[in-house]
Amino acid sequence: MKSFKKVLELDVPARRQFINITPSVAEALRKSKIKEGLCLVNAMHITASVFINDDESGLHDDFEEWLETLAPEKPYSQYRHNGYEDNADAHLKRTIMGREVVVAVTDGKLDFGPWEQIFYGEFDGKRRKRLMIKIIGE
Amino acid sequence: MKSFKKVLELDVPARRQFINITPSVAEALRKSKIKEGLCLVNAMHITASVFINDDESGLHDDFEEWLETLAPEKPYSQYRHNGYEDNADAHLKRTIMGREVVVAVTDGKLDFGPWEQIFYGEFDGKRRKRLMIKIIGE
Amino acid sequence: MKSFKKVLELDVPARRQFINITPSVAEALRKSKIKEGLCLVNAMHITASVFINDDESGLHDDFEEWLETLAPEKPYSQYRHNGYEDNADAHLKRTIMGREVVVAVTDGKLDFGPWEQIFYGEFDGKRRKRLMIKIIGE
Repeated sequence: MKSFKKVLELDVPARRQFINITPSVAEALRKSKIKEGLCLVNAMHITASVFINDDESGLHDDFEEWLETLAPEKPYSQYRHNGYEDNADAHLKRTIMGREVVVAVTDGKLDFGPWEQIFYGEFDGKRRKRLMIKIIGE
Repeated sequence: MKSFKKVLELDVPARRQFINITPSVAEALRKSKIKEGLCLVNAMHITASVFINDDESGLHDDFEEWLETLAPEKPYSQYRHNGYEDNADAHLKRTIMGREVVVAVTDGKLDFGPWEQIFYGEFDGKRRKRLMIKIIGE
Repeated sequence: MKSFKKVLELDVPARRQFINITPSVAEALRKSKIKEGLCLVNAMHITASVFINDDESGLHDDFEEWLETLAPEKPYSQYRHNGYEDNADAHLKRTIMGREVVVAVTDGKLDFGPWEQIFYGEFDGKRRKRLMIKIIGE
């Protein structure tokens, strides 16, 4: 069994932002030389998400608006977590979107359905962020 | 290490539908001859879900009603994704229900808790759909 | 390839409760002697969750309040699942929080971001509960 790890660093200038990381994950897989296995991609921050969906800007606007309805950022005082911090909503939003994805690796490629793309979703950004790619297989 | 892949095709006549796929996943595992490992099952469509819960029709009705409250199908115009499409709500519903499950494989069997069953949840059906089973182990 | 399985038993006196299980998962990993691989941790009950987030009591209170808003426990009669049972809300809450996490194993350790901790989240407790740890790798 082979294993391969890559920590990806991203600049996230906005508080909330979706970044298509599919090319970086595909590159990590190429470097791993793993042909058959599983590829885990997870946020390393607990206010961020890794998820799979469509790369369509209208949908991403819908996600932003929908998450604000389900777990609004303000007023900050509505959350007990917000004493020294102001990011409780980010913890809740990331819970909806999920921490991680596991993708099948077949024939050296990410084995996707037709529209699947991997995104890093940040909900408390404005700084440098990290995510983990871990691949195991042969 | 062994790996095994099976793409499952399903007819989904309704727009929204839950289908118990546990027997098909168990059959794929038998064919794989893998005794110890991990089994990934994921929707290949981004408006669909694979999730684990109870096979109880009242609960499935509750899921349907609850998801319509959290991410209503109509009016279509409330979503920016709905220009040429009408399925933005399906992308949101699938996000709540999740894209994938990973199940432990022990002694050649899906290693479940007492009531765990795997479902394919479709939110934009009325056509043939596909899901991925990928098993790795020994 | 090595594989290791451990079923963890927990007493859960309250109906809803979050329990930090990171030390138990880390101990299972040590026993497994696996240095590189993937570690699956999942609830074995369909009214419970395993998730990763911050070990901060204010945030846990926020989760409790937020989940009650999204999927209220009462009135029990609002859910079709609640004939002989009263736990439909627990099935919905667990869906938001997720059934499982997959964590990278690197150098014999759970390969976490700085604040990641693993929690068992129970939404229909008051009895003994079980969760699964399955580790594969080398």
